[in-house]
Amino acid sequence: MAKLSFIGAGNVAWHLAQALEDAGHSIRQVYSRDIRHAKELTRNLYDAQAVNTLDFTASDADIFFITIPDDAVERIADSCILPEGAILCHTSGTLPLSTLRPFPDRGVFYPLQTFSKSRHVDVQKVPFCLEASNDRTEEYIVALAQSISKTVYLVSSDERKILHVGAVFACNFSNHLMAVARNIVEREGLEFSLLKPLIEETFTKALAVDNPATVQTGPAIRGDEQTIANHVRYLKDYPLQQRIYRLLTESIQDMSKG
Amino acid sequence: MAKLSFIGAGNVAWHLAQALEDAGHSIRQVYSRDIRHAKELTRNLYDAQAVNTLDFTASDADIFFITIPDDAVERIADSCILPEGAILCHTSGTLPLSTLRPFPDRGVFYPLQTFSKSRHVDVQKVPFCLEASNDRTEEYIVALAQSISKTVYLVSSDERKILHVGAVFACNFSNHLMAVARNIVEREGLEFSLLKPLIEETFTKALAVDNPATVQTGPAIRGDEQTIANHVRYLKDYPLQQRIYRLLTESIQDMSKG
Repeated sequence: MAKLSFIGAGNVAWHLAQALEDAGHSIRQVYSRDIRHAKELTRNLYDAQAVNTLDFTASDADIFFITIPDDAVERIADSCILPEGAILCHTSGTLPLSTLRPFPDRGVFYPLQTFSKSRHVDVQKVPFCLEASNDRTEEYIVALAQSISKTVYLVSSDERKILHVGAVFACNFSNHLMAVARNIVEREGLEFSLLKPLIEETFTKALAVDNPATVQTGPAIRGDEQTIANHVRYLKDYPLQQRIYRLLTESIQDMSKG
Repeated sequence: MAKLSFIGAGNVAWHLAQALEDAGHSIRQVYSRDIRHAKELTRNLYDAQAVNTLDFTASDADIFFITIPDDAVERIADSCILPEGAILCHTSGTLPLSTLRPFPDRGVFYPLQTFSKSRHVDVQKVPFCLEASNDRTEEYIVALAQSISKTVYLVSSDERKILHVGAVFACNFSNHLMAVARNIVEREGLEFSLLKPLIEETFTKALAVDNPATVQTGPAIRGDEQTIANHVRYLKDYPLQQRIYRLLTESIQDMSKG
């Protein structure tokens, strides 16, 4: 059983704290600049204390998780006073381990998932990408991650950056393309919901195979130049989306050539 | 109860024939140039006959569905000889109703879904987009579609084209971006499967809201220019994907402005 504290009371803390407590660990403190946010979280935890100071000298926690926006991590870490021998981890997908350089026992404890308070996420299925400054820290955070998730990986800061680039393409950009599709059909008075079953089947199929390129469909991969020309012409009122259409068509055809 | 025949024995015929038979209709003929393909389909149907001629003069079917690739529809339709008063429908998302111009009772019976033989699709949840040359035909195909699906829409040829443009963005292009993500991470020895839970949550979330733009995440929408610059620099070995990254980032930021 580990004793843990959270620095930050947002979505990541919310989901991680609950999963860790359910796995038998004890949450000691939850820090938020605004103590009311910390209290919202501790209310659902067994015996965690809400705090709004970063002096943890008196804490009995073994490990501290920084769960705040990326751009504030370095500054907040510099203000933390931890008990002797405690581990400090950040939970960011983009920041290197070296962001926590002043702390000898530092780690990255990155859940490769998007969290919102209102949506349940099965933490057991979330891949955790871990990195540590030394063997003792690595052993500790690997055991901790394995107590809540079935998929735990050691991933270097460089590899984490590449996973992040991949996630931007597969997730952020895909989401945007769905938003583009919605704008196009709704401007003509058609319901976006008409496309939802097709979108669902597309993603389900892509995730069922090893390589989504093998289940690519549509005019680009078929080389249906007449349909492509029709679509490009239709998009004349959407110059940016017209360029996206052309470029992604080129990329699909390029990839299929191998 | 309708009597129907299929011209073409591919994935669409496979799923439609089964759904229509399950709803109590009778499949009379299945045509394929190679009669063995037609027989593969009729084997699973109650009393359908496999044929390899387009002369249906002796058929007792009321309605014929052309379920073949788009580029062959016009040619095959021109070769069909149908019984007096029969309806001819194509099932294409891209072809206008006028493709079947020689037939007075013509329609479009377009299932807005992607089918493969090996995957079960719940036809009840597939939106059907219908169009007809006259009231009698419209009434007939609307009733038929409603007997197998909960969502049946009358959609003009122009509207169907717009839905298709939307589907290319939301489905074909999204699938490709997942393939791009896979290539990027696997080239560095990382498993694409690491990203799958995040992808699943992304599209589940996008489909749960009215407008995916409201759940957009990532560096572009956050205005995180440092991460964007890092990613663009990393993509220097992928010039086409680098352009895609820049353009989609611009499009996300553009949409969020207004």
